[in-house]
Amino acid sequence: MSEISNNNDLPDYHDVERAAVRIKPFIRQTPVLQDPGLNQMLACQLFFKCENLQGSGAFKLRGASNAVARLREQNLSGDVATHSSGNHGAALALAARLDGRKAHVVMPDNASRLKVSAVQDQGGQIYFCQANQASREAGLQALVAAGHIAIPPYDHNDIIAGQGTACVELVRQVKDLDIVVSPIGGGGLIAGTALVTRHHGIATMGAEPVGAADTAISLQQGHRVDSVQADTIADGLRALVGVRNFVLIQELVDEVITVSDDEIRQAMIAFWRYFHLLIEPSSAVVLAAIQQQAGHFRDKRVAAIISGGNITPADWIAVSGWENER
Amino acid sequence: MSEISNNNDLPDYHDVERAAVRIKPFIRQTPVLQDPGLNQMLACQLFFKCENLQGSGAFKLRGASNAVARLREQNLSGDVATHSSGNHGAALALAARLDGRKAHVVMPDNASRLKVSAVQDQGGQIYFCQANQASREAGLQALVAAGHIAIPPYDHNDIIAGQGTACVELVRQVKDLDIVVSPIGGGGLIAGTALVTRHHGIATMGAEPVGAADTAISLQQGHRVDSVQADTIADGLRALVGVRNFVLIQELVDEVITVSDDEIRQAMIAFWRYFHLLIEPSSAVVLAAIQQQAGHFRDKRVAAIISGGNITPADWIAVSGWENER
Repeated sequence: MSEISNNNDLPDYHDVERAAVRIKPFIRQTPVLQDPGLNQMLACQLFFKCENLQGSGAFKLRGASNAVARLREQNLSGDVATHSSGNHGAALALAARLDGRKAHVVMPDNASRLKVSAVQDQGGQIYFCQANQASREAGLQALVAAGHIAIPPYDHNDIIAGQGTACVELVRQVKDLDIVVSPIGGGGLIAGTALVTRHHGIATMGAEPVGAADTAISLQQGHRVDSVQADTIADGLRALVGVRNFVLIQELVDEVITVSDDEIRQAMIAFWRYFHLLIEPSSAVVLAAIQQQAGHFRDKRVAAIISGGNITPADWIAVSGWENER
Repeated sequence: MSEISNNNDLPDYHDVERAAVRIKPFIRQTPVLQDPGLNQMLACQLFFKCENLQGSGAFKLRGASNAVARLREQNLSGDVATHSSGNHGAALALAARLDGRKAHVVMPDNASRLKVSAVQDQGGQIYFCQANQASREAGLQALVAAGHIAIPPYDHNDIIAGQGTACVELVRQVKDLDIVVSPIGGGGLIAGTALVTRHHGIATMGAEPVGAADTAISLQQGHRVDSVQADTIADGLRALVGVRNFVLIQELVDEVITVSDDEIRQAMIAFWRYFHLLIEPSSAVVLAAIQQQAGHFRDKRVAAIISGGNITPADWIAVSGWENER
């Protein structure tokens, strides 16, 4: 991870706008869903931006498509490489394949089978590593040494700008938002989102599992803490926040809410009851945060980004603890 | 079920247009989803109108909302009653509750637990009956004798007009469609749909399980056959086609494709793989029909109406035969 010398090295709102134009042919405009019963219960207007219905099953296709399209614009040929718990890997493999490239993906050996299959289905080559940050980064460095172009999952300007495009769509789909809530893992989605919300004068809140609260802790301590050991069911949020991402979060994000795994499980089940959609625990953190801090959101127009739906029905049942009987 | 004296007794396109305006405050505009990989495989442009993401989890909320709003317009007070395998019952209970009424619902004793709960959650009163058409209709007649207003699930002009509103939205969302494919159970959805497609010069195809192919058989024989015993996993399509519905289908529907339960299971799994959505077997018939008759749809712009998603993850696994391993 490179250090940031000053904010001129970081993406801005216009980079996100340009990314939105650049990737439009490669992504889906995802729907925004509402439920009157849920709104009534939480006493706010809730809008869910359903990136679980994005191609590749997650918002990650936005950043990956932007990064690959930027390589093409710069006439950089060659294979791409990354590390990923799964969603970025599958998205990069898809974006690379559409551009006639191959993707090499370092994955932790506890990655879900579905996510492993998704990378393979898109023609990606997988390299398993231990389930920790050091092992992931060492694996990626080896691939770069072999001559591949690194497209890291979040700590990268083109990735951040690409992920922000979900919010560019969102503010066109829903007017007069007060708050947007985004999950925080490596921080690509929330950093890109916050560039857009700040431009429009909308508040931004992050949602993080208690068991991977490195961003919340880093904000409290005033610097990026890299010693947190993740322990949460939200597999997509176990990564440490990126260097660039943290700088943007410090500057642009208003608050981070931390939620327990039990709150995440309840939110997974609630989302299924209201929308009949199976979402990953990493997505359910946003609804869990809104339910936990309902007072913050009362009478507001609140959008929550549902980041991904790459979980099998059987794994969803096992992770959420849901029972068929009611 | 009343007999039709002439076509003046039947709804027309303008009734559907008026219904769309009338019910707008009570329903969701549902998204249309596409997948490039599926389009490539089937060599056509496929657009899925996702009524599984409608309020109450199915298109049925459209017809029920229209029927209840029409009662209000006519100053008809009192409780409403119907028979339903589940989705119409839950939709009517919701529409009635929002209008300050109660719904009385006759349900077959083999209805899914989820669908029973959905009716109860909306304040509906359930009356179980045997799982056959005669028992369902006798149950409803008893409720009407008790003074409630019958809102049958499909053989009713306001229901047909309401169900057609999904297609009013669809033709605004997707231009230049060649074909729309709809499931056929009682025929409310396809009859309403066909009023809209015919108006716009779009072909209409129906999809029906082999084990409940009363509409296909009726079309072949030139009259409505009411002796078919349903045997299919598609619980929402077991009802016999309605009298009004059959007249409209005879006049407006170009072809009916019948699919086996195995083809339905495969389509449920395919839909999950491509969109990460769990759909009912009754919805999957449309994709099964398109896959079976791929030649019919080649190089065409084809919309398929996904009618509902009221199936629990555990039931989806059991019905589809899906295995977690790939």
